Amino acid sequence: MTTPKDLISVLNEEQRFLIAAHVNPDGDAIGSALALSSALESIGKETVTYSRDPIPRQYSFLPGIDNMRNSLDGASGPDPVLILVDCNTPERAGLGGHTFRRALVIDHHATESDFGNVRWIEHGSAATGLMVYELIKTLGLQITKEIAWNLYTAICIDTGTFRYGNTSAEVLRVAADLVDAGADPELIPRRLYEEWDLRRFNLMVMMLKQLKIRNGVALCYVTTEMLDKTGATAEDTENFSNIPRIIATVKVSVLLREVRSGGWKVSLRSKGDVDVSAVAQELGGGGHKNAAGFQISGDLNSAKRAVLAMIKKKIK
Amino acid sequence: MTTPKDLISVLNEEQRFLIAAHVNPDGDAIGSALALSSALESIGKETVTYSRDPIPRQYSFLPGIDNMRNSLDGASGPDPVLILVDCNTPERAGLGGHTFRRALVIDHHATESDFGNVRWIEHGSAATGLMVYELIKTLGLQITKEIAWNLYTAICIDTGTFRYGNTSAEVLRVAADLVDAGADPELIPRRLYEEWDLRRFNLMVMMLKQLKIRNGVALCYVTTEMLDKTGATAEDTENFSNIPRIIATVKVSVLLREVRSGGWKVSLRSKGDVDVSAVAQELGGGGHKNAAGFQISGDLNSAKRAVLAMIKKKIK
Repeated sequence: MTTPKDLISVLNEEQRFLIAAHVNPDGDAIGSALALSSALESIGKETVTYSRDPIPRQYSFLPGIDNMRNSLDGASGPDPVLILVDCNTPERAGLGGHTFRRALVIDHHATESDFGNVRWIEHGSAATGLMVYELIKTLGLQITKEIAWNLYTAICIDTGTFRYGNTSAEVLRVAADLVDAGADPELIPRRLYEEWDLRRFNLMVMMLKQLKIRNGVALCYVTTEMLDKTGATAEDTENFSNIPRIIATVKVSVLLREVRSGGWKVSLRSKGDVDVSAVAQELGGGGHKNAAGFQISGDLNSAKRAVLAMIKKKIK
Repeated sequence: MTTPKDLISVLNEEQRFLIAAHVNPDGDAIGSALALSSALESIGKETVTYSRDPIPRQYSFLPGIDNMRNSLDGASGPDPVLILVDCNTPERAGLGGHTFRRALVIDHHATESDFGNVRWIEHGSAATGLMVYELIKTLGLQITKEIAWNLYTAICIDTGTFRYGNTSAEVLRVAADLVDAGADPELIPRRLYEEWDLRRFNLMVMMLKQLKIRNGVALCYVTTEMLDKTGATAEDTENFSNIPRIIATVKVSVLLREVRSGGWKVSLRSKGDVDVSAVAQELGGGGHKNAAGFQISGDLNSAKRAVLAMIKKKIK
């Protein structure tokens, strides 16, 4: 993985940057944006970090997070260069309709368009944070403690803290360098995974109580009534679809979450070679082999039936 | 960390080795024993790996596990040299009363006695597996794929797959080397953490339903009636005491497990600087700062009261 020379040139030539994460930002988008901002400011550049959507609470410990803006009003100064991190279109960053004199893209996701003057896209990279690490090294800058915390978090989130299939020797070596630079390998995962709200915990227990498994498919649901009863929010269900994966016989895990405006948001998770993306695509959604999603209308029973029928059709 | 020269000498001089894990063996003990056996056999030595107690099901994927014996009958050949791994007395290996011509110790636990002709004990090492890695490198032997799987598992178990406070840059770099040598960083954690029996899952849900939190102390219990209802076993409760840690307000997690012969086995877990070992010691048990345990008699309510009172007394 090599940082493109023309990306380095633009970073050196220009002075002001607007670094934007994608909507519903995750730790890779946020950590990458904050680390890049920190590095560029260390060489006298001016940066604004931007996330249209609120920062999930678990990332509130990240160095620099308080400077992240959710509005462009007066924030970007005159005519900054846009840098999209962990996404590759302005729309994905909630910046559709805005125009920029120059734009850079640093991302590891599938390409959605040819937006950007310099596009650095590495599908093989486990996290955008790894690309930012490479970029900072290429610029010859120091990995400060602040940068290390942000990049370690980015890598943790996108590799399941070194448990997903994208974990490699290189990922572990970069993580080691970040620990040397001051990232705390105990505290970061604790902040990411052990800061649950009691409401969220109660919702999880309520959901797991009605888990059903048939033919290797685990099915759970979260209704708006369950949210109201526990006081939890829709965001609290993040990652819930992964929980049934701990059961040996479960090959596919399905979570139906009732949407207040009607219908269900469905998350599919699978293990190993079981591909759930085709199921999601057939039902109007998308995703990756082991993680996909879509929306579906109807009552709980008809939604369940439709999902299970499509899984039966698409997965042998 | 350097392998003692006299340890290397004995390994070179001798021909037959009995490599013993501790009772109730975990992944560090088992993985270390199997890796060491594999390395010594690659230079023509004869080894027997020994675990008095049954191997927990989750380790059945480890290369060489089928050769591990639970009896010494005819297994050890004439007069082998004992190597204790991940423990430092014959009693901890279930070998109390046996005598050995020569004995070596490779361990990272607190010293219990001065047993052994060569004692290599590194309290600062995150896992015995890291010491075996160092030993194999010192011997100039290749880290084969089999060795890599065993040592990666050892390190995963003792560092919570790179989440505990003993995770360091060095641990991550050794893990990277093991991935280069063929360890699968996705499949190993999947085998370790995602192979739950449905009975175990049902027991967990049943336990979590009655979780109570007061003053930062989470309290759960598993009765023999709950085991009978779900068909789960006492071993299935392993790690259950860690689950409530995901809740932000929980500083201490207590699990009481009813013992069939009467009374309760109590596990204590804590976060960060909260020290539960003093609580366990006062009640006749022991352990480390963040993980300790003891046994207590009486009915559920009196056991609960005694534990909570001691926590109140010992933890501010």
